[in-house]
Amino acid sequence: MTTRRQFFGYAGAAAAGAAVSGGAVVALDNDKPQQQAVARLISPYGEHQPGIAAPSPRHAELVGLKLLPGTDKAALGRLMRLWSNDIVALANGRPAPGDTAPELAVANVALTTTVGFGPRVFELTGNKPAGLDDLPVMKHDRLDPAWSGGDLLVMVGADDAVSVVDAVRRLVADAKPSATPLWRQSGFWNGTGSEGQPVTGRNLFGQVDGTGNPAVGTPDFDSTVWSSDGPDWFRGGTTLVVRRIRMNLDTWDKLTRSEQERAVGRKLSNGAPLTGTAEHDELDLEARDTDGRLVIAENSHARLSHHSENDGRRIFRKGLNYVQDNGPNRESGLIFLSHQADVAGQFLPLLARLDAADALNEWTTTIGSAVFALPPGFQPGGWLAQKLLG
Amino acid sequence: MTTRRQFFGYAGAAAAGAAVSGGAVVALDNDKPQQQAVARLISPYGEHQPGIAAPSPRHAELVGLKLLPGTDKAALGRLMRLWSNDIVALANGRPAPGDTAPELAVANVALTTTVGFGPRVFELTGNKPAGLDDLPVMKHDRLDPAWSGGDLLVMVGADDAVSVVDAVRRLVADAKPSATPLWRQSGFWNGTGSEGQPVTGRNLFGQVDGTGNPAVGTPDFDSTVWSSDGPDWFRGGTTLVVRRIRMNLDTWDKLTRSEQERAVGRKLSNGAPLTGTAEHDELDLEARDTDGRLVIAENSHARLSHHSENDGRRIFRKGLNYVQDNGPNRESGLIFLSHQADVAGQFLPLLARLDAADALNEWTTTIGSAVFALPPGFQPGGWLAQKLLG
Repeated sequence: MTTRRQFFGYAGAAAAGAAVSGGAVVALDNDKPQQQAVARLISPYGEHQPGIAAPSPRHAELVGLKLLPGTDKAALGRLMRLWSNDIVALANGRPAPGDTAPELAVANVALTTTVGFGPRVFELTGNKPAGLDDLPVMKHDRLDPAWSGGDLLVMVGADDAVSVVDAVRRLVADAKPSATPLWRQSGFWNGTGSEGQPVTGRNLFGQVDGTGNPAVGTPDFDSTVWSSDGPDWFRGGTTLVVRRIRMNLDTWDKLTRSEQERAVGRKLSNGAPLTGTAEHDELDLEARDTDGRLVIAENSHARLSHHSENDGRRIFRKGLNYVQDNGPNRESGLIFLSHQADVAGQFLPLLARLDAADALNEWTTTIGSAVFALPPGFQPGGWLAQKLLG
Repeated sequence: MTTRRQFFGYAGAAAAGAAVSGGAVVALDNDKPQQQAVARLISPYGEHQPGIAAPSPRHAELVGLKLLPGTDKAALGRLMRLWSNDIVALANGRPAPGDTAPELAVANVALTTTVGFGPRVFELTGNKPAGLDDLPVMKHDRLDPAWSGGDLLVMVGADDAVSVVDAVRRLVADAKPSATPLWRQSGFWNGTGSEGQPVTGRNLFGQVDGTGNPAVGTPDFDSTVWSSDGPDWFRGGTTLVVRRIRMNLDTWDKLTRSEQERAVGRKLSNGAPLTGTAEHDELDLEARDTDGRLVIAENSHARLSHHSENDGRRIFRKGLNYVQDNGPNRESGLIFLSHQADVAGQFLPLLARLDAADALNEWTTTIGSAVFALPPGFQPGGWLAQKLLG
């Protein structure tokens, strides 16, 4: 129990996720028992990249980069070797080589770095994972190039925003000969309840967000997330869809709570389906109220996104809240993140169904969209995507 | 020692500050010893407002609001009563009355709310604290109205960004009949070292930032920060200068570390003066190197901002790092915060000296500026600025 309590301490949610995921370990310093709760080191090594099979971090920054003209497969390989070195140093709380502000790299903040390749990378390398194409533009999309596309993704998460900014700055600087930022997005999440327990977390509408996910470490999770039948280099990898979803808090706030709950199909209090009492109760999609209306409405988000409506195909869905200020104007929203082995097979049908009918479309607008293949992890002595680029 | 260790746990820096400041307490739940480190409640009551005599919070948002035409002294009083209710609820981890997403308000995140009045408020109320005027525009300033001025300030800090956003949303909504946002600024700070110990924290140049402050709770701190000879209603209050300082990381990064240290007058490694070895060593402003040059250079930031250069007058200086993204463009900087009893007497001479000669001006540009009087705190049954507005 002691160990469990350490995992589930103040900032324990990500650690708990890390503990059950493939390549992640939590280092506890036994010489300093009073400080165990703060020792948060997630291994950069493993079968899978870190930062995937884990809850959303408290802070994260995502950068989409475009390859510069002339960057070839060999140059991309050099960058991956460089980034792999950076990733190992940063995960251990050391500055990346060449950091001009090395003291900003602090340990024990559960820093993870995750790297991805956009569709165009495979024009250089071949061996594209099946179905990894730019997403089609949906009817409700209002995409801004300032938040869309990209050939490379670097995503850094940690307990501490300063560490995230420092790490990204170094990774972007090291990419300079080969790639330049196309967009940057920062977000935050709270996966810790007021008693220190891990919780699913809420978006800025107040909804519990991510309840329907397969549990990390289960066979269902593994088959949902990790590629097993793509190109050989991609085994143990996954894909990531990044969508920037603007949320209209002003019009959402004008609804009653029961109108909000009807749109979502879940209770705002604890995320339970409207047909249940606890967050993880199974949805009863057939239940009707005394007027004969479906309790979980036809166009509710919970129904349309439920895997039983998607031929049983699932996704692993995470999010980061964001705010964007310009003088008096604040935009609020969600950086929607979805991991799946196969974008075309698992995500696109779901996206199409939500675009066509999701009640939430009235208060949300997708303004950015990007898709990436995330290579498997690497081991000491190896480097990212070595099988593809080596 | 146990208590001390609890204070100095993972997120203990702010708690430590709170513990020594006037009106703040840290509640620990003795029934759940494994969760003591997460119980972080800072009292909303006290002689002084919370969030002042404490280190920078992990996350904060500041909103400058302008009063709407027709808002009079009575309306401002109504708003302060409403905000006082909100502040008490939010500090206790409860939603503010009328919160449309009440579950976003979580406890134990050390949430504090601090309120201030811009110079124009005193045209309605009289009794303006002496010297509380808009700052003069400095030679190096490039002020953008999008980040400047304001009749009211609300500043919320916490361990958790979601809680900050939720609290500000409610406070701004409650102000709607009387005031509307003019600007919003969000920032972050890391006042916890990698061993969980409280540290001064660093800005995005990597500098230890805030070393020269008087220690919270000392007579020097009290005389620096709290007003004792202003209008009667203002006793126990303070003023706050908010300056948004853009930092050019690209050109800063081109310097050698010794060039950076010469500009600052302190070591980057630990913030020690160039004439010393530990962060809090006193500056030797006369020391010269073997070439006869002053070790702490004539135009170094540490020399020019040292209180001995300012007739002994001090300020209590805090900061929040910020990043502002727009597509590929990132702006990085510091939300500079300075508390002092008297803006004109303590802050303006310092500002003028730094504007004239600070070596750092080459890499920094102030793009926003505002000044506020922060009323003293209130007790149960009372409300903010009751003596001014009641």
